[in-house]
Amino acid sequence: MRAMADRPLVLGAVLFPDFELLDVFGPLEVLGFQRDAFRILLVGPEPGPVASAQGPRSVADHGLADCPPLDVLLVPGGLGTRREVENDRLLAWLRERAADAAYVTSVCTGAALLARAGLLDGRRATSNKRSWDWVVSQGPKVDWIRRARWVEDGTFWTSSGVSAGIDMTLQFVATRVGADVAEATAWRIEHTWHRDATVDPFADPRPARPPGR
Amino acid sequence: MRAMADRPLVLGAVLFPDFELLDVFGPLEVLGFQRDAFRILLVGPEPGPVASAQGPRSVADHGLADCPPLDVLLVPGGLGTRREVENDRLLAWLRERAADAAYVTSVCTGAALLARAGLLDGRRATSNKRSWDWVVSQGPKVDWIRRARWVEDGTFWTSSGVSAGIDMTLQFVATRVGADVAEATAWRIEHTWHRDATVDPFADPRPARPPGR
Repeated sequence: MRAMADRPLVLGAVLFPDFELLDVFGPLEVLGFQRDAFRILLVGPEPGPVASAQGPRSVADHGLADCPPLDVLLVPGGLGTRREVENDRLLAWLRERAADAAYVTSVCTGAALLARAGLLDGRRATSNKRSWDWVVSQGPKVDWIRRARWVEDGTFWTSSGVSAGIDMTLQFVATRVGADVAEATAWRIEHTWHRDATVDPFADPRPARPPGR
Repeated sequence: MRAMADRPLVLGAVLFPDFELLDVFGPLEVLGFQRDAFRILLVGPEPGPVASAQGPRSVADHGLADCPPLDVLLVPGGLGTRREVENDRLLAWLRERAADAAYVTSVCTGAALLARAGLLDGRRATSNKRSWDWVVSQGPKVDWIRRARWVEDGTFWTSSGVSAGIDMTLQFVATRVGADVAEATAWRIEHTWHRDATVDPFADPRPARPPGR
């Protein structure tokens, strides 16, 4: 693991074609307020534009080959994970970078990539409920926790589907920076924080009227 | 207004330097599932990368000068709005494009840009609560509604701060595509939809423990 001392943690959000927009930019919205605590990089297959599953393109600051050392990995989901689980170059990069990172995080089906890289073997983890069976099939040695907004297992943090990444990241800020800072961030972005990681209405069969308020 | 017939609505999300990430990509996450209903474009000052307030860059598909006709405008907030309210080129473009659009929407302090362009005069609108006084000062002829998750006034839809854009966009999908489609989208992204536009806990003074569950 890299020595962290008194400097911002360098976080790399891993982009691949057809990544899920909110899986990336929900967490980065939360982390972006803490410039003293986190330095955010987008990492793609190569430097330059990467198209999301929804269409819009974002710019990878670095490619896998030229990416500087990272303290935190953020691996999103999205339709592209169906293809990327077969991408040996990406899986090898994730294994190599996870070994040096202080934290490895995923949102939604991003957990399938960590699982296929073998990084979640013997660990507790969760993922999106809509793609649950497929994700679980990518990691038979993982202790999958279906009912969870997110799961922490040591340095590995995995969240449920899409918007759960925001809630997990607020808890990550609470742990790493301070509970008061996390609460202030949720208030500032006018987000009703789902604080209890063990509560997960989306693990149930879909009711006639889905959760809301 | 453009004739819409049986084609996807063309939506332009307006990027400027220091736009707020989630103001743009929360709504686009929701709309991105409806490829038959919406075609999404990012529009910047010029085509190419635009840096968000949080740091990450996204790619404008078009600049203001080469942007095709738009059915829907989405104007985000972010620190950059403090500068852009003085940007006569952008304000003139917003006036011109709003005249042809079927819907004009804003998230967070994006309402300040619509207000400064004169587009909200005599209309009901809302905005972020953390920057309320500044936003209101940009549009003295606007009927500002402080307590609202979002406000619809004819073809103008304005939302409260940051994450409120997701809730407003779900209602926009319900109105434009169908309530069942909006519910299915909220469920798919594992989002607890704040469905009642008149309920707004963030309009109150901040409690010791902010809203959560």
